[in-house]
Amino acid sequence: MTAPMLRLYDNLSSGNGYKCRWLLTQVGLPFERVEVDIDKAESRTPEFLAVNPNGRIPVLRLGPHDFLAESNAILRWIAEGTGFWPDNRRDKAAVLQWLFWEQYSHEPNIATARFWKTHRFEMTPERVHALVLKREQGHFALAQMETHLALRDWLVGERCTIADIALYAYTHVAEEGGFDLDRYPAVRRWLDRFAAQPGHIAITDRPGTEVPLAEALATEG
Amino acid sequence: MTAPMLRLYDNLSSGNGYKCRWLLTQVGLPFERVEVDIDKAESRTPEFLAVNPNGRIPVLRLGPHDFLAESNAILRWIAEGTGFWPDNRRDKAAVLQWLFWEQYSHEPNIATARFWKTHRFEMTPERVHALVLKREQGHFALAQMETHLALRDWLVGERCTIADIALYAYTHVAEEGGFDLDRYPAVRRWLDRFAAQPGHIAITDRPGTEVPLAEALATEG
Repeated sequence: MTAPMLRLYDNLSSGNGYKCRWLLTQVGLPFERVEVDIDKAESRTPEFLAVNPNGRIPVLRLGPHDFLAESNAILRWIAEGTGFWPDNRRDKAAVLQWLFWEQYSHEPNIATARFWKTHRFEMTPERVHALVLKREQGHFALAQMETHLALRDWLVGERCTIADIALYAYTHVAEEGGFDLDRYPAVRRWLDRFAAQPGHIAITDRPGTEVPLAEALATEG
Repeated sequence: MTAPMLRLYDNLSSGNGYKCRWLLTQVGLPFERVEVDIDKAESRTPEFLAVNPNGRIPVLRLGPHDFLAESNAILRWIAEGTGFWPDNRRDKAAVLQWLFWEQYSHEPNIATARFWKTHRFEMTPERVHALVLKREQGHFALAQMETHLALRDWLVGERCTIADIALYAYTHVAEEGGFDLDRYPAVRRWLDRFAAQPGHIAITDRPGTEVPLAEALATEG
C-alpha cells in the first residue's frame, strides 16, 4: 500500500506557503498544489474551513481527512529523516526557538507590511499607525538576525535547516514591505548562500501538480 | 558530573512564563526562578539582551552561556522523555501545530488584551482600534478550541500534552482580558480538567528557588 500523494493548499504570494513548496521540492516528495485565492476569501468558505478551521494556508493534506496546518509544523513534518532537521537535542531546540521566533517576532511585522502593500490594502489611519510599530519591530528582528549571522553561515549548526527555510521565506522579500536590507550585510550574504543551493526554487515558481481548488475540495467531503 | 541547575528568567504575570514553571514543577526538575520586572524594562537592559537578544521572558538557562528562549521551544525541551510529548509522529505534528497556532492566532489576541488591561496601558485610540480586531480574532480562536474540545478531553491524543499546557496558560485568564468564557462550555470543562491534575500549580504560585535578577545576571557575563 502506498501513501496517498501529498496535497498542499497554498497561495503563491505567501512566504508561509513558499516554505513548504521549497522543502517538498528539495526532498523530492511529489505533491499536488492547490492555489487558494485569499484575496477572494477562498480560505474562509465552509468547505475550506473543514480543511483548516483557522481559515489559513498553507495546509498539507497527509491523507483522507487528515490535514496538517501551520507552516512551521509542516516544515518539521517534511524534514523528518532529512538533514534539514538536526540530529542532536540542543540543535533541535535551537531550530524550534527560531521557528517560534519567526512566527511571533518576524512574520507579523515583516510579512504583514508586505502583504498590505502587495495586496493593495487601503492604508487607513489605523494601518498607518500599526505600520510604524511593525517597521520598528521588524528592524529589531532583522538586527537580531544580522548579529547572529555575522558569525555563522547558517542559523543553527553547520548546514541549512528548517530554521533557515522559515526565515528565508519572508526575509528575502522584506524589501517588498519597505524594509531596506542594505543595513544588514550578513543577512544579505546568507540570503545569497541560501539561494545558491542546488535545486533552489523561487517564490514565484509553481512546483507540484496543480489541482483546481473546487476539484480538490470536492474530494475532502 | 552533574548538569548545572536550570534557571528560568520569568515574570509572574506572564502566561508564557507560567507554561515553563508549570511543566518544570510537574516533571520535578529543580530550578532557580529569576523575576524580571518587564514593567521596568528589565528585559531590555544590555545585560538581559545578552541572555536573550529578543528582550523577552521566559528564557531557560541550560548551562553557562547557554540560553533557550521562546516558551513553546522551552516546553518541548522540558517535555523530552515525558508523557507530555507524544510518542508517535502524527501526534507530535499535531502538538506542534497547536503550539504554533497558540503563538500566532491565540496569544497575540488574548494575551495582549489582558496585558494592556492588567499592566494599565493607556488606551490610546490606536490601542482601542487594535483591541476591536484582537477581540474578534481572539473569539475566533476560542471558538476553534470549543469545537475541537467538544469531542475530546485533551487537544491531542488521550492525555495532557504540552499543547494543553501552552493553551491553558492564557485561556484560563482570558477573562482578565475581557473575554467571556461562558460562551465556551467545552473549553471551561477542559480548563477544570487541566487544573484538577495532581501537582497543578496556579499562575500566582512561585515555584523554584528565587534568585534576584542582578545576582543572576552577574554570573552570566
